[in-house]
Formats: sequence, C-alpha cells, structure tokens
Amino acid sequence: MTFSYQLHRTDQRARRGTFHTPRGAVETPCFMPVGTRATVKGVFPRDLKEMGATMVLANTFHLHLRPGEELIERLGELHQFMQYDGPILTDSGGFQVFSLSDLRKISEDGVAFRSPVDGSPCFISPEISMKIQRALGSNVVMAFDECPNHEMTGTELRASTDMTLRWLERCLSVVLKPHQTIFPIVQGGMDGNLRIDSAQRTVQLVPHAAGFAVGGLAVGESRDVTYKMLEISLGELPTDRPRYMMGVGTPEDLVWAVDHGIDLFDCVLPTRNARNARVFAPGGALNLRNAVHKEDAAPIMEGCDCHACATGFSRSYIHHLHKTKEMLGGMLCSIHNLRYLIRLCEQMRESIQAGTWEEWRTKFFQTNPHVPADPKVPAIE
Amino acid sequence: MTFSYQLHRTDQRARRGTFHTPRGAVETPCFMPVGTRATVKGVFPRDLKEMGATMVLANTFHLHLRPGEELIERLGELHQFMQYDGPILTDSGGFQVFSLSDLRKISEDGVAFRSPVDGSPCFISPEISMKIQRALGSNVVMAFDECPNHEMTGTELRASTDMTLRWLERCLSVVLKPHQTIFPIVQGGMDGNLRIDSAQRTVQLVPHAAGFAVGGLAVGESRDVTYKMLEISLGELPTDRPRYMMGVGTPEDLVWAVDHGIDLFDCVLPTRNARNARVFAPGGALNLRNAVHKEDAAPIMEGCDCHACATGFSRSYIHHLHKTKEMLGGMLCSIHNLRYLIRLCEQMRESIQAGTWEEWRTKFFQTNPHVPADPKVPAIE
Repeated sequence: MTFSYQLHRTDQRARRGTFHTPRGAVETPCFMPVGTRATVKGVFPRDLKEMGATMVLANTFHLHLRPGEELIERLGELHQFMQYDGPILTDSGGFQVFSLSDLRKISEDGVAFRSPVDGSPCFISPEISMKIQRALGSNVVMAFDECPNHEMTGTELRASTDMTLRWLERCLSVVLKPHQTIFPIVQGGMDGNLRIDSAQRTVQLVPHAAGFAVGGLAVGESRDVTYKMLEISLGELPTDRPRYMMGVGTPEDLVWAVDHGIDLFDCVLPTRNARNARVFAPGGALNLRNAVHKEDAAPIMEGCDCHACATGFSRSYIHHLHKTKEMLGGMLCSIHNLRYLIRLCEQMRESIQAGTWEEWRTKFFQTNPHVPADPKVPAIE
Repeated sequence: MTFSYQLHRTDQRARRGTFHTPRGAVETPCFMPVGTRATVKGVFPRDLKEMGATMVLANTFHLHLRPGEELIERLGELHQFMQYDGPILTDSGGFQVFSLSDLRKISEDGVAFRSPVDGSPCFISPEISMKIQRALGSNVVMAFDECPNHEMTGTELRASTDMTLRWLERCLSVVLKPHQTIFPIVQGGMDGNLRIDSAQRTVQLVPHAAGFAVGGLAVGESRDVTYKMLEISLGELPTDRPRYMMGVGTPEDLVWAVDHGIDLFDCVLPTRNARNARVFAPGGALNLRNAVHKEDAAPIMEGCDCHACATGFSRSYIHHLHKTKEMLGGMLCSIHNLRYLIRLCEQMRESIQAGTWEEWRTKFFQTNPHVPADPKVPAIE
C-alpha cells in the first residue's frame, strides 16, 4: 500500500515516469479525466479504461454536499461507489469554495459558505477537508489550500500564501488511510518571489510527499504569466516525485506543461466542451453544432482511434445529435476529447522515452499552427 | 435481399420464429428498442448489440423534420448514419402527426401540420411517408395509417378505418428499395367488427406482406379492451408472417402480447422511464430517485446480466446520479431497462421452443403479482 515514483528518463525538461499507487501504476505524463460528482460526465467507467485512462479525479466539495462522504464510505468508498478500480485523486474542495465568491467567508480557521444545493450553512477547514477525503477513500488526497485571485498582490497575497502553508500543517495533522497519500500545493499567485517561498517552505514541511502540485494557475491570468510562474515553482520542487499542474487543459497546455517538467494534469474542459459539441482536432477545436458540419460525412478526426471516430460516426450525425439535444452527442464527443488528450500523453511519453522530445514538440506545433510553440509568445488570433 | 419468416414452434398461441431480413435474422418474439431521432437515447449502438438487440426502430416524422431524409440518404441511409448494422424499422410518422392534435389537419390527401421545430407548414401523405422511408433506407417500412382516438366510434371510426385502407393502397403504389419491405397496419379502433373488416381487407390488399402490424392499441383505452381488440385483429391475420403490436410496452404487456400470438413490439417506455430513474424489476418498477434507495448497496436487480447490474453499480450510486442530474444515471438505467425486456424475450423464446410456455407464463405472473395473469382481469392496485 505504498506510493512511489520512478523517473525513467528526462529529455530537456520533459519527464517520463511511473507513479505507483495502491490501485495501480500511472504512466506519466498523464492526463486525469475529471469525475466531479463521482462520474466522468457521460462516460462509462469501462469506456474510461478502454480509452487508456488511469487516474481520475473526483471532487471533495461536490461529494460532501451530495451524497455526503459518510454514505460513500459506508458503500465501500469512492472506488466501489463509482465502480472505478483505478487510482482516484480528490481535490480538496478549496478551489470550489473560493469560486463561490459572495457566498463564502474565509478566516484562518477555514471557509464558511452557503450550500449551493439548499442554501444551508457549511464550513470546510483543512482538517474537515482531510476527513472528507479520508472517508471518500481516494488514493491521492489534495491539501486544502487557498487559491488566490490572479489579480491579488502585495501583503494580501503574502498573507494568503502564508495561510496555505499553515493550512498544510493542519492537513498533515490528520492521519489518512493506508491506501492514501497527500499532495501539498504550491501557491504564491503571480508573484515569483512568493512562488519560490511557497515551494521551498512546502518542501520543508513535507519533504517526503509522494507528489507536489502547483496550484493557482490558469485562473484568468495571461498564458505567459502562467508558464513563468510554473517554471519558477517547479524550480524549487524535487525532481524525483510527480509534479501536478492543476486545472489544465487544452492540448497545447499539456504540451507546454510537459515541456516545463509537469507529470500530471486534470481539467473539465474535454468533457464540458464535448457537451457543447466542441471537439479537439489538430489545428484547433471544432464546434460540431456549426452548419458547416451538417453534411460532413467525415469522422470528428481522420485517423483518431477513439470509439466515436473509429466506429465511423460522422460529423453530420454528431451535428444532428447536438442540434436535437440527444445525449449520444455529448457521449461521443466526450469519448473523443478524453481519448485525444490521453493519446497526446501516450505520444509525449513515447517521444520522451525515445529521446525525441524536441522533434515531437516541433511537429506538434507545426500541426497546430493556431497556437505558439512557446506559451510566452502571444497567440496568433 | 429478401424477407422471410420461419415459424419454428407454437405453444398455445405463443409463437417462436425467425424473421429474416437483408440485415440479419430477428429471433421472435422480439422487443425493438426505439431510436426516435436515429439514436436510442443515451445508448451506444455497440451497447445495443451487447445487450442482444437486433431490430431497432427509428421515426420517420422526427427524422423528416431534422435532419431531413435527403441528408440521411446522401450519408448512406440510416444504417450508416447512426452506425447500426442490424435491421431497422421505421414507423410511418402517422402516429406522431396525429398526436399533434391542434396543430394538424387531416384530409383524404394526407395530413397538414405545423412543424413543432420551427412552426413551418408541413404535409405528409401516404406517398410522402413512403418516399421519406425509402430515402431513410430502413428495412421495414410501416404503412402510413390514421391512428384514431380510442374514443372514436360509429361512422367517424368507420371512415377513418376505410381511409387507412385507401392510404395503404397509395402506400403500395410507391416502389421501395430492394432491401426494404412494407408492413401494413390493421386499425379499427375499439370496434371488433371494424377490426375484423380492417384485418381482412388489409390481407386482401397485401396478401404477400412480409409482416403485419396491429396499430391503434394501448393509446388510452383500458387494458382489457386492448387485448380483446388484439385478439380479434390477430384472428384474421396470417400465421406464417410476423405480427407486430405497435407501442407496447411494459414487461407484462410483452408477456400478454406473446400469449396472444404477437412476435414484435416496440416502445419508448424503457428508455423514457430510465431517464426518470424508473427501472424494471420483478414485482414492479422501482423509482431510484426515491429516498428509500439512497443508501441501498444492492444493484438495480440481483442476478440481472445487464451492464449496470453485472458491473455492480448500486442503487445508491444511481440514486445519486439521478439526484444530481448526471447523464450516467439515465445511461445505466436505459441499459438495464432495455436488457430487461430483451432478456424477457429470450426467456419467452426458450420456453416456447421447449413447449413450456404455460409454466413459464405462470411463473412470470407469480413473480410479478402486481399485475394479473390475464389482462382482461383488473389490476390489483
């Protein structure tokens, strides 16, 4: 019941590794599909397996509200509840409560908020978040942090970053189950010095953490700032543990993140976009609701091995499904988008292993000319 | 490219046969899942195959409105469009246009109506329905009939029944594709003499039809009337062709219908109920949204071999999915309900083949005491 990380090879800053968990190995770089309420929206667990998903994410905040962590624990924890036998990561709920903005009040103790389900008063502290995640039985438990607004600066940002570190200590005081481990989260907003400070003090607090996360990025700031902050944060983190960039993203985000030395990512984008008929494709996402796809017999993407494309469902059919609000439209697009990112990770792993990262990366941006190869360069609009 | 029917065995009035189509064999009795807009709602075509579905139904009226039959024909007809390689039956659109009530005007020529999509004026006649179905490329094409209100009587009902027969002649004037055949529909409302007349004249008009349907039943009348009318209609139809009861239904309806000598049925009930968390189970349907299921670790039905039950998804989890409006709730319940009816048909086929229909039927009603073994007996409420 232990966690370990093998770093097989690095190529430039890109890393190829294996994160071992009590629920199996996670080959990295790895994209984790998001199953907010213990279900990756519109996707059967067996279809997640088929598309090559390993670790999936579930959401502490949402599951605490409904159906409640006690119920899930009684029913055999998350794996049994959602019938997913691979590794599961739960986020701490921090990001969601902070997103409630007007409905919440932050103090040193924790965050008081009104339930968006029934308006009842709720409270989550670092200890409570840990206890919820302990009950849920996820394998990777995320520390309860404060995710500052990307415009926060100065003493306010310093105070927030410090509080996240004090909260981390409180998180560490809660004993988890043997099949669980905690990932601390580096914060520091868009201030490089605070990022360094946060990362260094985080490593001091949890030198033997099974993995480290970089949080508070891709929350509204410009992309050049995102990757500058990522770079600074990673510079202070151990290289012999997996590094997780929270909340990305797009295909290009995955490539940029790997290029900076990231191993894990998650995002709701592939499934949320899918339900709105937006699908990943080389050269940029397509919106299959657009009239241009009405009579298009082609699959979403030629050569794609996802169930939707490989079976031969046409863009025309998927257009029809979305226009008539048929569930199958979102189901097919979700499978495509998730498989697209998972396959991208497979390709990145292969190229790093083969020592051809630079060539692969160059080729990726050649086939995706709508995005710059360097995230610090403005996008071509 | 021909259609034929082999009647393997009868046991009392129940029949075990094989309906051969250019898209493969349909073992009867057979329940046909409904894919109104060229998709069985919330179910992948491959999962239909896995659960043992053979023939599925699609809807002429809805597909005519969106995306239009010309588009579907250009994209390789329905089979290619929806990626279902088994036999497909299309209903004629008659039932849907009559259901529009205030929005439609019936004349000898056909039915004028306003599109429920955009309010534009539309018109469907027997010839137009045939041409739409020809373009769709379904294997079994249903005649365009008038489905009278179950309260219609006297000269009005006689006129409607006669018009359906004149419309059948007009349907027959349209040449279909080689992989298609037409099933005429017996009407006659709730008038036994008209039912006999309709059936006899239908057989006279199309003595070599590949199959015959009984329509206008289960449209609001009491169940004893439904089965009296079915019995009368079937008495006049050939026994060497499949007989299709349109629009049923519940597990008990399937058993009653088979007991009367029916071979094919269809209904939206299993998938519509599924999306509302209502699932079939011995002893009567369950509503998994009810609080009693909130902590229930049991599967929908012990021993069920559907993907939802066999995987071990609990009632508690499915309750949670429906309460939080997650797509997976409807997806799992749809698979269960469809498999429930398909398995019921498998069991009925086995018992008829084995000459044990009476025993099987008796046992079915013992395990489903909420419904009477004889549909002409009032239900125990």
